[in-house]
Parts: sequence; structure tokens; C-alpha cells
Amino acid sequence: MGHSSLVIPAPRAGLMSADLVQLVTSIAQRARAASLVLATTPTARKDAALLRLAELIPASAETLLFANARDLEAARANNLPAHQVERLTLSPAKLDHLAESVRQVAALPDPVGTTLEDWTRPNGIHIRKRRVPIGVIGIIYEARPNVTIDCAILCLKSGNAAILRGGKEIFNTNTAFAALLTQALAETGLPADAVQLIPTTDRAALNTLLKLDAYVHCIIPRGGESLIRFVAQNSTIPVIKHYTGVCFLYADKDADPVLAENILLNAKTQRPGVCNTVEQLLVHAGVAPTLLPRLAAALAAKGVQLRCDPASLAILRNSGSQLSALNSQLSAASAADFTAEFLDLILAVRIVPDLETAIATINRDSSGHTEAIITRDETAARRFQDAIDSAVVTWNASTRFNDGFEFGFGAEIGISTDRLHARGPMGLNELCSYKYVIDGTGQVRA
Amino acid sequence: MGHSSLVIPAPRAGLMSADLVQLVTSIAQRARAASLVLATTPTARKDAALLRLAELIPASAETLLFANARDLEAARANNLPAHQVERLTLSPAKLDHLAESVRQVAALPDPVGTTLEDWTRPNGIHIRKRRVPIGVIGIIYEARPNVTIDCAILCLKSGNAAILRGGKEIFNTNTAFAALLTQALAETGLPADAVQLIPTTDRAALNTLLKLDAYVHCIIPRGGESLIRFVAQNSTIPVIKHYTGVCFLYADKDADPVLAENILLNAKTQRPGVCNTVEQLLVHAGVAPTLLPRLAAALAAKGVQLRCDPASLAILRNSGSQLSALNSQLSAASAADFTAEFLDLILAVRIVPDLETAIATINRDSSGHTEAIITRDETAARRFQDAIDSAVVTWNASTRFNDGFEFGFGAEIGISTDRLHARGPMGLNELCSYKYVIDGTGQVRA
Repeated sequence: MGHSSLVIPAPRAGLMSADLVQLVTSIAQRARAASLVLATTPTARKDAALLRLAELIPASAETLLFANARDLEAARANNLPAHQVERLTLSPAKLDHLAESVRQVAALPDPVGTTLEDWTRPNGIHIRKRRVPIGVIGIIYEARPNVTIDCAILCLKSGNAAILRGGKEIFNTNTAFAALLTQALAETGLPADAVQLIPTTDRAALNTLLKLDAYVHCIIPRGGESLIRFVAQNSTIPVIKHYTGVCFLYADKDADPVLAENILLNAKTQRPGVCNTVEQLLVHAGVAPTLLPRLAAALAAKGVQLRCDPASLAILRNSGSQLSALNSQLSAASAADFTAEFLDLILAVRIVPDLETAIATINRDSSGHTEAIITRDETAARRFQDAIDSAVVTWNASTRFNDGFEFGFGAEIGISTDRLHARGPMGLNELCSYKYVIDGTGQVRA
Repeated sequence: MGHSSLVIPAPRAGLMSADLVQLVTSIAQRARAASLVLATTPTARKDAALLRLAELIPASAETLLFANARDLEAARANNLPAHQVERLTLSPAKLDHLAESVRQVAALPDPVGTTLEDWTRPNGIHIRKRRVPIGVIGIIYEARPNVTIDCAILCLKSGNAAILRGGKEIFNTNTAFAALLTQALAETGLPADAVQLIPTTDRAALNTLLKLDAYVHCIIPRGGESLIRFVAQNSTIPVIKHYTGVCFLYADKDADPVLAENILLNAKTQRPGVCNTVEQLLVHAGVAPTLLPRLAAALAAKGVQLRCDPASLAILRNSGSQLSALNSQLSAASAADFTAEFLDLILAVRIVPDLETAIATINRDSSGHTEAIITRDETAARRFQDAIDSAVVTWNASTRFNDGFEFGFGAEIGISTDRLHARGPMGLNELCSYKYVIDGTGQVRA
């Protein structure tokens, strides 16, 4: 859920375009061949590769930290802000944590081979819908050192071959991780081509990859909106997008004030930089005069700035005498604030006359990611959950629960904002397709 | 599964590009608004609209046949081949059949609202995965008069708004059907914008539609490969493709000869022009000398031409004395024949040394649509079904069973050759997405 901007590196001198096309095409062809092997590889062998990788990560700490230091040096030379350099930085503790996450994925159930449905037709043919890997998945990501391992292990566990294309800022670290992946695969007898890192961040290589629909079956971009948009607009391979979260919380006229305050504080302030944080509060007009000042005071105490529509601003200004700490946090919202993903301690606020207006407002202005209703009225809650067209709709629970781990998936490759194939948290099951296996005794079609 | 070529009509005089963009954008926006209404429309009201449509079709026969006559006139003036004119032609009997298919879709269970899974997390939140409509679906199709109704009713039943863009040759007929759809919707109180036909076949309108990812959630092209390819390459909206079927039948060394003959004849000759027909036969070398002449003779008797690799050609030429009728049907295959979709009474034939070679050959040269193994050996059958990377893999059953009706889906919008979202037959369930509905009692994330 990073949101840095798309980095477009200059072409590397000496690497001609035709060479690049050949290189990336060869990677994709080898990934396709590896995917056919992986699709029938028993669980124990995939897990053995993962466990070997978990051993190799701490054992190779020196190499990994050395590679990382080169990336950090370049980042400082390029005057990257300190918090971005921090994000790039590996440490022995982070490597231990990463190895542990690899062991956790190894311990998860294998999604492949599960029978999803089966039935027998009147003519006697028996049809089984069986979960299978998608095939070859391309992951396009930006500058986080753990993504190479995170994505590789989820693809491997789900029987998919992975082609990884990481960001320029973390290229040396990614290359060192990719070498460990290759080693773990080779040592445990799996195809080394099952996980491949594209060995250049040249944009031409990315453009080539995005057209190789003959070999690559799915592209998952992980990163900022401009990266995702670029990938979606240039790919002839199906893309599963993980776009922004402009998430709403609606405090209904029957909202429990304590519960509303707790959930709103959690959804806005626990981790404001992520996609399932709340960006906008709608309050029913009937309770706004009492509820809104309470919520605003609690938010202000946590340093949240409020960008208000005229009605909510009037209520809060009127109650301002009791809430002097609040006044400095208030401002009139612009039109853009009502569809904004702030990813910061900022909240847009509007008053709505009724539930139906709340629903229509959200279906128009939210990004369809996660919305919450706070109410004691089950009828209102059910209407909200039915009518809101978002991936996750909570009743009296934080929007922050739209998350693979919170769902119990044990792992997460992201949170899909698409409607096809996967919507909401994507775990191992969502990295799979299915096929139909039919058993007959000579049936033909009449 | 039509396979005519992409028709690129000339722009209609007087309709400026900016007008077209505005027109198509307005259609998409209104479809999006209608989709939000449809998503919570009760089953009975959707069925009422369908049943009204079923009444209107025969009642409007005169209008429909008049519109159709205009298309047929133009087709003859444009010297369309007789079999294509035949495909365009409506009749009172065809209209009755169409009305009956509308009633059948009304009688199917509503896919919307079904709980697909539900579970409670340790913190007490209850998560339900619920089937919901995708939203707005664009259907791009060619020249068959029934597709407008077929697609509209499947989208309506599954709660999706539909934008239809049909072919030039059948424009007047489509327009007449679209008017009936609007009438049925309006008379039963559903939004008339739930089904809209783009009122021009101008290519610029299609290009506009394919970029409206803000309002349209899925594009399904139905038609020939060039149409599908054009749509896939120009759409920023996710596309579910229904590509060619280069389907294989593998006769294993333990194949029952009678069963192999029956299934092969059915799969090749019952309807050679459709995507689930067999295009290539692989025969295990161990049984080829006895089995292949038998199969070839049966195929030749049905007028099937065989395009053979050298090994199979040698076997058949040697047995030629007994099979004089066969000789005129035999020829040496070209390399292209081994990946060809003939859609005709033509079959490519190869000998393979073993099961694994059959699997590798199919995974390399088939289109991943439907493959069959004929064998008495369950171990061989299971290995084949596991390792073949196709949407449907049959054992001792015809490839022709890859079909929504044969699966028992009750209806079919097509057969997906994609791996994401839907693979194989697409019925009402496959026209749906899902969302997660979470019930809490004040839970926040720790």
C-alpha cells in the first residue's frame, strides 16, 4: 500500500532495446515452463523450498545488508527524504522477521487442488471444479525491501511462477534476495525459473513485459496510484488493481456515541498512511449537534485536522467555546476534499439528512474500498450493507479490518479494488484460478 | 462463438466525434446509476421484467420482422454470402424460441445475495462473503440477432446493467429488440437505463466505451478472434475473453477403441464450427497401428479430412489397401496445422510416444480450452487431468461438454478462455462479483 510516485529510470547505457525485448521475453517463456512444473508440485516440495529460503535469509545477512547499503548510499546521494531512506533500510532484526514470515507461509494450507464444487449430470458425467494456480504472475512494485520475498513466497506457495519487477531505489537489495530465491529453489529441486527478477529497471523492459500475454497470465502492480494507472493502461495482460482507499464512516442517527468515537479514532489515527484508514466522516443531521462535537474533540486531541462542509463547520464553530483546542484544527473543505485520499491526519466531514443520502454520497464519492456504518439500528445497518457498493462494508467495526491477516487469510498480497476475480483482501486462494475436471464413461453430446 | 471478421463501419456523416464521446459517456453514466438500483432489486421484480419481455417479443413480431427485413435487404445488397444472410434472419418460430429462452432465464435461481462463505474471527467480528452483481457490463458482439436479448437477460437476471454494442449488419434488428427491452423495464418499474444499446456502430463510439473504466466494470467481447483481440488491446476496462478453441483428444495406449471412436466422432463431427469441437488427435504409438486406422476410417466416412504427421501418415498409407475411401482424405500436415482452429471437418493427427509427450504437446500447442483423454487406465487419466493446463479436461467424455447448458448452468454468456474471474462456461454466477459484509460490536484494530 505504498504511495510513492512512479519512478521512470533512464535507460541503462549499452543495453539496446532489441536485447531488452529478447531478455524479458526469455524470462517470461522460462516462467511459463516453470509454471507447468509448479502446478503439479506437491505441497511438501514447495514448503521445503520455502523453509530453505527461511534458513538462507539470516544466514546471508552479511550479503543482504551489504547490497542494501549500496541502495542506501545511492538514496542519500539522491537526497531522498529521511523517512524514505528509513523505508529502504534492512536490519538483522528485519531479516529475522522476514524469515519468520516465510516460515508462516510455508505453514499455511496449500490452496491448490482443493475441490470447490462437484456434481453429477443426468447423463452421468461427473464435474469437479478444482482450484489450480493462475500460471505466471508478474508483480510490479516500488521501493520496499520486503516485497520481493513477500510476493515470491505467496506465488510459490500457490503454485504460480513469479516475474518480479522492483523499483530502482532498491535494485541491489532485490537482486540479492532474488539470488537467495534461486538458490533455495535449486537446492530443493524446484525450477529456478519459478521466481525471476527482471535484472533491469529500464522502463522498456516493463513495457515489454506488459505485452507478453502469451506467457504471463496476470499482472499485480503494488505501489502508488500513478504506477498502477500506468500498468493498467499499458498492459494487454489482465491486471488486478490495488487502488486508493477513500473510505467513509457514517455515524447514523442511532449511533452509540462511545462506539462511534472508538471506531472513528481507530480507523483514522491508528495508521493514517494506509488504504483502509477512514478519510471522510458523514454524520446524520439528527445527531450531529451532539455527536459531532464529541467526535471532533476526540479527533482534535489526536491531532486530526477536520475539513468541514458548511453545516458541520457551523455546528463545530458554535460549540467552539468549549472546544478551544479544536478551533485551530477546523477548516472549510474544498470540493476536492470530499473525494480525497489524504493518507494523513486529515478528515473530511459532512452532515447528511438521512441514511439514503449517506448511501448515495458514498456510492458516488468513495473509491469502493471500505465503508463503515455506526448504528444500533439493525435495519439501517442491513440497508447500508446491501446498498453500499464497496469491497468491504462494516457495521460497528473499524474499516481497518479490510486486511488479509485480519480476515484470517494468514497472508496477503494486497487489497484488490477490482470487481473481477478478487475483491478486497487477496490471500493464497485469490492467487488461484480453477479448472473443470470431467469424468465420463463414454458420454457424447446428443 | 461466431467467427466472422471485425467490421469497422465508416463514421456516420454528421455525427461529430465530440458528440459521440458525450453520447457514449452519458450512456455509461446512466448505466452506472441504474446498476446501483439493480443491485438491490428483488428477484421478483427482475423476473417480472423478464416475463414482460417474453410477452412483448411475439406480440411485437411484426415490428421485429420488419426491422430484420431492412437488415436482410442491406445484407443482400452488400452481397453477403447466403449462409451469413441465413444467420441474420429472424422468423416467427425463432421469436417464439427466443421468448421461451427469456422465460427460462426468469425461472433460474437469482445468483445475487447468496452467502458464499462466512466465519467469525477470534475478536468476534463476523465476516460474510456475499455474491453481488459486477456492476456495469459492456457486451461487444457481431451479427447474430439473438445476442442482444441473450446478453441483456443474463445481465438483468444477475443484477448488472448492460451496455450493448452490436454489429452493423444487424443494427436495425438490434434497435428493435432494444426498444422492447426498454419497454419491459419501464412497464415493470425498473430503470430503463439498465439495458442500453449504443445507437451507432461507429468505431469511435466503441473506442470511447472501452476507456470508460470509471463507469464500466467489465467488457465481454463475443465474436471472432480479431474483434476480441481489438477489444483486449484497446480496453482499459477488464476484459473476459472468449478466444478460440484448439482442442485436443488424446487416445492413450489403454484406450477402449469403441469408446475412442464414438467420442472422437462426436467431438469432431457433431458441430464442427464451434469452439469446443476437437481439432487435433494424438494417438499413443503403442496402439496407433491398430487404433488409428479404425478411427481414421470412421472419420473419413463422415467426410473428415486428416492432416497427418509423418508417423501417422505412414500408418494410414500402409493400411490404405483396406481403406481406399480414406486415401483421398489424407494429407501431410503443415506446421501451422498443429496449432490451428479449423472449425471445419478437418483434423490434425499426430503420434506421441507416451503420456508425458501428449501432455507437453497439448500444453504447448492447444489454446487451453478443452482437452480429452481416452483410456481405461485411471492413473494415466488422473495424471492427464492434473497436468493439462486447460479450462476443461475430460476423461472418456466428449470435449463438447464444455458448455454452460451441459454443465447445468441453465444459461451461458460464453466460454471464457481467461484464467482470472471465470474460466470455462460462464453462467449467471460468473456474471457476479462478491463483497464482504462485516458485523461487529465495536471492534477496533489493535
